[in-house]
Amino acid sequence: MKMLHFAVLFVILFSSSSHAADFCVAKLKGAGNPAGYACRMPSKVTVDDFVFAGLGVAGNTTNIISAAVTPAFVQQFPGVNGLGLSMARLDLAPAGVIPMHTHPGASEILFVVQGKITAGFISSSANTVYVKTLKKGDVMVFPRGLLHFQINAAGINAVAVVSFSDPDPGLQITDFAFFANDLSSELLEKSTFLDDAQVKKLKKVLGGTG
Amino acid sequence: MKMLHFAVLFVILFSSSSHAADFCVAKLKGAGNPAGYACRMPSKVTVDDFVFAGLGVAGNTTNIISAAVTPAFVQQFPGVNGLGLSMARLDLAPAGVIPMHTHPGASEILFVVQGKITAGFISSSANTVYVKTLKKGDVMVFPRGLLHFQINAAGINAVAVVSFSDPDPGLQITDFAFFANDLSSELLEKSTFLDDAQVKKLKKVLGGTG
Amino acid sequence: MKMLHFAVLFVILFSSSSHAADFCVAKLKGAGNPAGYACRMPSKVTVDDFVFAGLGVAGNTTNIISAAVTPAFVQQFPGVNGLGLSMARLDLAPAGVIPMHTHPGASEILFVVQGKITAGFISSSANTVYVKTLKKGDVMVFPRGLLHFQINAAGINAVAVVSFSDPDPGLQITDFAFFANDLSSELLEKSTFLDDAQVKKLKKVLGGTG
Amino acid sequence: MKMLHFAVLFVILFSSSSHAADFCVAKLKGAGNPAGYACRMPSKVTVDDFVFAGLGVAGNTTNIISAAVTPAFVQQFPGVNGLGLSMARLDLAPAGVIPMHTHPGASEILFVVQGKITAGFISSSANTVYVKTLKKGDVMVFPRGLLHFQINAAGINAVAVVSFSDPDPGLQITDFAFFANDLSSELLEKSTFLDDAQVKKLKKVLGGTG
Amino acid sequence: MKMLHFAVLFVILFSSSSHAADFCVAKLKGAGNPAGYACRMPSKVTVDDFVFAGLGVAGNTTNIISAAVTPAFVQQFPGVNGLGLSMARLDLAPAGVIPMHTHPGASEILFVVQGKITAGFISSSANTVYVKTLKKGDVMVFPRGLLHFQINAAGINAVAVVSFSDPDPGLQITDFAFFANDLSSELLEKSTFLDDAQVKKLKKVLGGTG
Amino acid sequence: MKMLHFAVLFVILFSSSSHAADFCVAKLKGAGNPAGYACRMPSKVTVDDFVFAGLGVAGNTTNIISAAVTPAFVQQFPGVNGLGLSMARLDLAPAGVIPMHTHPGASEILFVVQGKITAGFISSSANTVYVKTLKKGDVMVFPRGLLHFQINAAGINAVAVVSFSDPDPGLQITDFAFFANDLSSELLEKSTFLDDAQVKKLKKVLGGTG
Repeated sequence: MKMLHFAVLFVILFSSSSHAADFCVAKLKGAGNPAGYACRMPSKVTVDDFVFAGLGVAGNTTNIISAAVTPAFVQQFPGVNGLGLSMARLDLAPAGVIPMHTHPGASEILFVVQGKITAGFISSSANTVYVKTLKKGDVMVFPRGLLHFQINAAGINAVAVVSFSDPDPGLQITDFAFFANDLSSELLEKSTFLDDAQVKKLKKVLGGTG
Repeated sequence: MKMLHFAVLFVILFSSSSHAADFCVAKLKGAGNPAGYACRMPSKVTVDDFVFAGLGVAGNTTNIISAAVTPAFVQQFPGVNGLGLSMARLDLAPAGVIPMHTHPGASEILFVVQGKITAGFISSSANTVYVKTLKKGDVMVFPRGLLHFQINAAGINAVAVVSFSDPDPGLQITDFAFFANDLSSELLEKSTFLDDAQVKKLKKVLGGTG
Repeated sequence: MKMLHFAVLFVILFSSSSHAADFCVAKLKGAGNPAGYACRMPSKVTVDDFVFAGLGVAGNTTNIISAAVTPAFVQQFPGVNGLGLSMARLDLAPAGVIPMHTHPGASEILFVVQGKITAGFISSSANTVYVKTLKKGDVMVFPRGLLHFQINAAGINAVAVVSFSDPDPGLQITDFAFFANDLSSELLEKSTFLDDAQVKKLKKVLGGTG
Repeated sequence: MKMLHFAVLFVILFSSSSHAADFCVAKLKGAGNPAGYACRMPSKVTVDDFVFAGLGVAGNTTNIISAAVTPAFVQQFPGVNGLGLSMARLDLAPAGVIPMHTHPGASEILFVVQGKITAGFISSSANTVYVKTLKKGDVMVFPRGLLHFQINAAGINAVAVVSFSDPDPGLQITDFAFFANDLSSELLEKSTFLDDAQVKKLKKVLGGTG
Repeated sequence: MKMLHFAVLFVILFSSSSHAADFCVAKLKGAGNPAGYACRMPSKVTVDDFVFAGLGVAGNTTNIISAAVTPAFVQQFPGVNGLGLSMARLDLAPAGVIPMHTHPGASEILFVVQGKITAGFISSSANTVYVKTLKKGDVMVFPRGLLHFQINAAGINAVAVVSFSDPDPGLQITDFAFFANDLSSELLEKSTFLDDAQVKKLKKVLGGTG
Repeated sequence: MKMLHFAVLFVILFSSSSHAADFCVAKLKGAGNPAGYACRMPSKVTVDDFVFAGLGVAGNTTNIISAAVTPAFVQQFPGVNGLGLSMARLDLAPAGVIPMHTHPGASEILFVVQGKITAGFISSSANTVYVKTLKKGDVMVFPRGLLHFQINAAGINAVAVVSFSDPDPGLQITDFAFFANDLSSELLEKSTFLDDAQVKKLKKVLGGTG
């Protein structure tokens, strides 16, 4: 019958494909390559691969920065592999701060869900500071690779959702890069002009050596 | 004096640039090109070009879909030009629905801010349906170019923030593409197998002719 | 002897490479990743990996659409892997139609080899219809991700060659996405405004359930 | 009335855009940039911007190569600007040849519309030759940037349609690059090892000097 | 005559193009867009647009860092516009240092022309330090967006050539971003955990306020 | 203690990642894909994966071209995998020449370390020659895919460092592509207009057959 043919026709034409143009849910255990992770077989993918519940839970802000970052990057949310975007949740207790950092491979937009947040970034060519206190519902964009920070600007918990232009945006917190490893104090001081006492103090706080 | 030299040195080296590698806030009035809009002069850019307050206001849902889409695409938020991402806000009254649609040039992640939303997308190769009812805090990703929809799944207003992998993701609502223009009923019926009465009825609702 | 050295020199310099910058013929059996499929060893590649004869054969149009799509996508033609393009052949019997569809990841150019074809696409921002009857030798471009269709416009068989801007362009036929799966009639009707009778009728034709 | 609101809602939301995400028909007169040409205003674009009739006409093969290339690149067919693909038509009289050439920025697929064509390309790493005689309906892919050629392989006119992975693929014919300009014979001979008599002979044929 | 036709044929076919697929020498005075600068007319371009002599001159290292960066980015060397790469020269006097910095949009390879240089970068995910003393002829790659530095490692002037994966890589020196602008000491201290005295001291050195 | 929490917090958040956003040092033994090679586990990567000493050694120029190319492409220098750039060293003895060639997938910048080099490239659209004699410290850019060459322009050894816009730029030397394989003299002569004697002579020099 003709009607059957209609359905059959296209199924036959396209059934030989074991790769889906549509999506590529990551197999995290294998080796990635510069384009991301290998794809799971589409036949084994379910809707739950495209849904992530982890951003619905407040992060634990009982720590030195009184803040938490909960990522939904490709490592936590394999459904975004190859799709050019990801998300994260920020929780900032009243004194909370997300310290100066960059995302080496992505731009970011922040949406304030609750509270107030003072956010800023610094341009590279002129070192210009762009800083603003954002209220609930405001969004701010942080161009790729530039230093930026977020600080709670009110006396209550603040929550934000941030989206990135890459499934794997990376996160380089300057303090961690400088002080939370074995980079020798000598090289660090020469390359940052920070005083030895300052370097030693922050290395101690952040668990660095050298 | 040496300290002055330090500052002067780099300012001189890079001051000849009238183009910033960092960002490219759109001049919306000029013609765009395939990469986006022309850049405003960095010297005229302020922090307000990187902040957008429009997503903090609930959209008007007094309409046939009981829903509203408030975009923060490059046309509304010129700061995202060239940065590979954008955002929007969805408001769905209790009976609200964002009808079946695609974004021709972008993937999307939805974050539920309030209420419950039933969302789904359909794959191209196998026409598989991926549908789930999402609660507050859940995120779901919709791969680029695929048909998807969102429907309020509870008796209260739902709000979501959606992010896109492009500053200008586009939005093609199937009903509008089919029924809200002058595409002839004959061609539409031949290419969709919809009945003439159905086509005429929806053309009338959506203001189409032909 | 000097002449020998010339040939030997470069062979030695470049013989350590097991990966070819030139091409990457797909190993279809392994898992792909967002950039495509893994490469076969260049030493096992022959000219036949770059040639495909399947488009020389008319597709079988004895079906409900009186038409056939014969793809030369990466799944059928592994030589195009990573090269940014692919092809397909369209056959339309006198009443033939390629129904409304999108390619989620590619633009398309159609070249009419034989007969006449009425083709059109619909823009997203304004729902504008761009439709034209094409004669032998005409080409028409369909921008990426937008709804388009092709219909035989003469009393004879029509043949077209279509090229895509991606080795794996995907194909989402709206009727199949709506009616050829288990998407519940309730969700479908809410998200498309189609009548229940229309939905049930087309689900039956296309083998859908729910 | 509610129905009206539906249509009005989205029109209002998106009418503020003067740039279309969907397409970007080239303004050829202005300066391009690395992404292509500036976009014409969408309101001035018609279906004829997406249709090109020039490939329906046989090229004039009364010339030394007994062949003709008729391009539908962005310069001839502005509708492909930014869409990642273009086309051309090849006509080869019985002794026709498209001489050794490269496309600096694009891969190519050739589809034989009529006649027989012997086509080949040469890999870079191993200088391997991939050559085949193609019959009507066969396709062959030529990876980006590699030297390739096409020669009529039968006693009748051959016609092919070729598609490219770029709107502006470029065309560098080796003979023209070597002999049809003012590159000094001395530099040319040193850098190609061709004999002086050979260089002088072909410079004369192709109008070169030096 | 046939030979003339050969030359004439292709000139005619391609002479209508005012845009060159080959290159796009930047017009620096106009506004750029996210893909770079507008192209100068190819007819006005000469070989001197593709040659830059500025890297042949030692930079002035009589400054606080005893070092100099001489860029050949698109702003200094318009010929690289759209070509995906650029260069710079580093001069380090015996005590010279290129302080901790990032290039927001590019990877870098350093080639030591003269002397010895200790160079290092810090990964984002694990804050791992990769540091090495390089001798003449060594190269080291610094992945895009990551903090890195270079320090003279011998008692003589060191010279290096660095190449970037972008015509406009940007340069964000952490010390300048932190201390050479009007970012308030309060926000800076909160977001970096640096002591007030340290911040004030370096703001003074680098000309910052606030 | 709070300070400990700071360090612990971020380590926990990001420790689940087996893929690094920062870099992807190539596993050369496995199959590549169009984006490059698979990544080695970051935990096994050391600074030596980002350093390459091979360009510090002069290439052997005792050969017919009196020149040598020493590549630091991804096959020799796995640290550049996915980073969008690579390097090579050129050595030219007094009569040395790097013959006419293209890089199918990359632009190139040449920096003269020692001696003088006459370099040139040829545009595709107009076959225009851009040639210049470069002295120590000069740079010249060769746009992607275009024919170019380098010749020693002084009586002493010349050395250059060249950078590419791709980790795997490829290298197609026209003489090798034409004469160093089994491409039949008949096809070669038809597609290049070279005389039979010239073809036979260079096939003999370069080890070709046919």
